[in-house]
Amino acid sequence: MKPIAVILSGCGVFDGTEVNEAVLTLLSIEQLGAKAQCLAPNIEQAHVVNHLTQEPTNEKRNVLVESARIARGDIQDIASVDPSDFSAAILVGGFGAAKNLCNFAFEQDVMVNQPTSDFVKAIHQANKPLGFMCIAPVIAAKLFLGVKLTIGSDSGTAKRIESMGAIHAQAQVDGVVVDKDHKIVTTPAYMLAQSVGDAYSGIYGLLKALLALQSSSFE
Amino acid sequence: MKPIAVILSGCGVFDGTEVNEAVLTLLSIEQLGAKAQCLAPNIEQAHVVNHLTQEPTNEKRNVLVESARIARGDIQDIASVDPSDFSAAILVGGFGAAKNLCNFAFEQDVMVNQPTSDFVKAIHQANKPLGFMCIAPVIAAKLFLGVKLTIGSDSGTAKRIESMGAIHAQAQVDGVVVDKDHKIVTTPAYMLAQSVGDAYSGIYGLLKALLALQSSSFE
Repeated sequence: MKPIAVILSGCGVFDGTEVNEAVLTLLSIEQLGAKAQCLAPNIEQAHVVNHLTQEPTNEKRNVLVESARIARGDIQDIASVDPSDFSAAILVGGFGAAKNLCNFAFEQDVMVNQPTSDFVKAIHQANKPLGFMCIAPVIAAKLFLGVKLTIGSDSGTAKRIESMGAIHAQAQVDGVVVDKDHKIVTTPAYMLAQSVGDAYSGIYGLLKALLALQSSSFE
Repeated sequence: MKPIAVILSGCGVFDGTEVNEAVLTLLSIEQLGAKAQCLAPNIEQAHVVNHLTQEPTNEKRNVLVESARIARGDIQDIASVDPSDFSAAILVGGFGAAKNLCNFAFEQDVMVNQPTSDFVKAIHQANKPLGFMCIAPVIAAKLFLGVKLTIGSDSGTAKRIESMGAIHAQAQVDGVVVDKDHKIVTTPAYMLAQSVGDAYSGIYGLLKALLALQSSSFE
């Protein structure tokens, strides 16, 4: 069975991947009998945030190198892999999804990192399912016009997503929104989670829904 | 109920905390109905390792600041807290436990970071249980003469631990060694784990054993 791509954006909620979300994604994939392969773009982080003070620092860090901290070094440059080697893809949250994978956190006119966009579109065009959690659904909103998704219940973010052409559905932390037509599943994760157990409930549900979409396809 | 202290040593297996172990510890604590509070020493890391290439870099990073990436900022300096505010303590693994919390990775004559040593000894002297996973049991070996523990099955490490005065017991990845006299529980975690699910089985068992020791005490 081909692995599910788990797309990371650094290491740490304020400038990269939300660490709990990444680990719970890898755990859920294994518990549901599938395989994971971590990927990240080989680019400089938009910035580096001191996670103790939440202040930006003057450091420079690389998204792929920092993501490798979560993946124990077992990670590949998203620009260097063949999308046909993967059965699905999950985009994990954290501000890195809105700062490094795209510029949603900084700009009204959203641009997605090109290798990430190319990879995600190729998975979609091959009729394979995609999952997005936390703030990462903004990337789905940008790439797939009219997609139905959730970022939880934050009305400002929901309005901005709707202005990009997506349909926002409110969800609880353990809820999953499934867009069968687009084969896209979303869950709020740390947009709403108050604890690691909260996040786990939604992320496990996301993976379960993604695998159900996968088995309903013809491959 | 007082929280369990979860002691971190950075963020990333090769120079800090093993990220999966930390998240699975926090998840297990919540699933078992207890509370966690992350702590770390406010010191410079022994070194910084690029987790993609596994080569050391010239960067300087702080253990408390990097550990905050795992804890979403909710972490305290271990030197600044009162041990009597905690019900137990867990030392998570990763090379950071052997490079930052002590110098086991670099020196034959093992020294433990002073604030970490003071905190761990205070928990022990208050008759509260301690848990150590992965390579972190070397700290127990140094601080508690004659403690029975496991680091899995690596004979070189086991011999070195025995030369420090501890008793090594082999264990599988899902196994937990309980020293009732010392109120110390240990599990191999990523000394043996081949996957995040492997690590979860042992870490969940560790927390369960620790809580059983806690409820058997008089406080």
